[in-house]
Amino acid sequence: MGPYQNDLLLRTLRGENPSRPPVWIMRQAGRYLPDFMKLSAKYDFFTRCQTPELATTLTLMPVDQLGLDAAILFSDILIVPRAMGIQVGMRPGTGPYLSSPIRSASAVKKLPIPDVGESLNYVMDAIALTKRALGDRVPLIGFAGSPWTLLCYVVEGKGSKTFDVAKGFCFSQPKAAHALLQKITDTTILYLREKVKAGADVIQLFDSWGGLLSPWDYREFSWSYINPIIEALKDEVPVIIFGKGCWFAYGEMADSNATAIGLDWTVSPELGRSLTGNKKVVQGNYDPARLLSPIPKIKKDVEEMINRFGTHRYIANLGHGILPHTPVEHAKAFVEAVKAYPNQG
Amino acid sequence: MGPYQNDLLLRTLRGENPSRPPVWIMRQAGRYLPDFMKLSAKYDFFTRCQTPELATTLTLMPVDQLGLDAAILFSDILIVPRAMGIQVGMRPGTGPYLSSPIRSASAVKKLPIPDVGESLNYVMDAIALTKRALGDRVPLIGFAGSPWTLLCYVVEGKGSKTFDVAKGFCFSQPKAAHALLQKITDTTILYLREKVKAGADVIQLFDSWGGLLSPWDYREFSWSYINPIIEALKDEVPVIIFGKGCWFAYGEMADSNATAIGLDWTVSPELGRSLTGNKKVVQGNYDPARLLSPIPKIKKDVEEMINRFGTHRYIANLGHGILPHTPVEHAKAFVEAVKAYPNQG
Repeated sequence: MGPYQNDLLLRTLRGENPSRPPVWIMRQAGRYLPDFMKLSAKYDFFTRCQTPELATTLTLMPVDQLGLDAAILFSDILIVPRAMGIQVGMRPGTGPYLSSPIRSASAVKKLPIPDVGESLNYVMDAIALTKRALGDRVPLIGFAGSPWTLLCYVVEGKGSKTFDVAKGFCFSQPKAAHALLQKITDTTILYLREKVKAGADVIQLFDSWGGLLSPWDYREFSWSYINPIIEALKDEVPVIIFGKGCWFAYGEMADSNATAIGLDWTVSPELGRSLTGNKKVVQGNYDPARLLSPIPKIKKDVEEMINRFGTHRYIANLGHGILPHTPVEHAKAFVEAVKAYPNQG
Repeated sequence: MGPYQNDLLLRTLRGENPSRPPVWIMRQAGRYLPDFMKLSAKYDFFTRCQTPELATTLTLMPVDQLGLDAAILFSDILIVPRAMGIQVGMRPGTGPYLSSPIRSASAVKKLPIPDVGESLNYVMDAIALTKRALGDRVPLIGFAGSPWTLLCYVVEGKGSKTFDVAKGFCFSQPKAAHALLQKITDTTILYLREKVKAGADVIQLFDSWGGLLSPWDYREFSWSYINPIIEALKDEVPVIIFGKGCWFAYGEMADSNATAIGLDWTVSPELGRSLTGNKKVVQGNYDPARLLSPIPKIKKDVEEMINRFGTHRYIANLGHGILPHTPVEHAKAFVEAVKAYPNQG
């Protein structure tokens, strides 16, 4: 790990206090980039994930074009269930789909814990290739979905606003749900350990659908499986936990061995600090839709955001993934405003 | 207004302390009822809304079948934009759609403030007919969508997880967005005053998409238009404000002249009480997906929920609308568990 020419992210995660916060953008390798769209037109989604050369190109693209302080490996959370033999496809425009969603104890029982070194070797190759291409410029973030978020997709069988079928499965067949969550957790730990061995400097866990649960159901079906992943990695790598809509669980996250907590934009900086007990690095939390504001407004907002979070123990980011129809110049303005902080001298 | 044989809801809203909390269910006239599905097969969505006899039948159906403590007029939030001349359709299975979404200042400028007595007369007829059919059994709730939530649909042009287009419109053309919100607000006030005159005993405002905004954008684009509606009605009728995902705004709601605040299930009873300053009636907040649990679990959960909220200044309900695939027996178990409280004697 390192030393990097730009080690702002790692220093911030170690609790040091660099002159300005590091900045990266969730889904920074995404559809808002015209060059990304050119590659998407040629190669389908999982081909891009599974071809190390393409994943490397896509990982470096936003770092080069926007001047970000970290790379994040181009990949997808759904490659984990795919490695478990679950047939997850991706339909352009509508998202993930499964022709045979997992909805019974017997279907769960049949699922293997895969040899991730073999079934996900393309990820490790992509990391090695990306590290060579990046050189010592910036650190590389690896990621995985939370077990709960992966359960949502593999049970529901498609994207959803509310994931009622997935929740119904958990609430009507809790034993089968827990068995599924445990298998996903075991696979995820093996997978992330390999990623770290291959060269990932930081791991972020995405709990995109944790906010659909009540605080007690969150504890039972999501946090109980996220925390063992954090525990398995804590001595090897800094872990960032991002739970969309999970403000009610920030206290538990702050009591864990996660290094940083990602916040969404429904939480003010002051409340985000106070809900995490002022004891963790926090990351976030600009509303991605606010990047559709005029550029001067974006710059003003970013300065205010950093003023309110403070520069210490803070990573500037959006509060969720960047939107496909974001103008690239607006994304650049966001990054530049962080780098220019404090703008007023 | 009243007197009703069952006046639990009105007494609770007046701050009295009846022996048990009143119970009703958001979207209680919905697809989980087999008899509702029979009528849906015969008459399309807006025909059901616009035909007083059908609206009355659908309003009484869940009251009769589940034994609820209040009726809520069968209708839809989208009839308000339709009365403003906005062509909103409804596709079975996918929801609202507009062939010409409102996305420019000039489109907003053309919108009229309708004569609601004329364009929405069918609602007032439905209320009169429903009141006659209900007799003095239970009070009748009327409702409207918040201006922000209606803007989401008329700008996005369809349902969405994130309403990025609608948010982008507000953030890139704030003047046009505010003009649209003001027109919707003016129409809504006229509409709700007519509803109260026609016999609605309580008004609930649904801010289904308020939780997509940051606290400051919520104040600017949602709360600034909800509060004038509350002010316009406060001397005539109790107002319940329900904002999905709006936990960050409960403090402002508690400082308003709303009579009650609807909570969703991401908020524990204790936190819901504390965020509303212990000064309002609160309503909620069972996770609708939890009605897919086994019946004994539902009964246990309901008892615990009431224990934690307390019976004073509390209305039992779900934290959002009941799900279409909820077994009727489970919905009944929910209602009966409230009515049997305290179950242990």
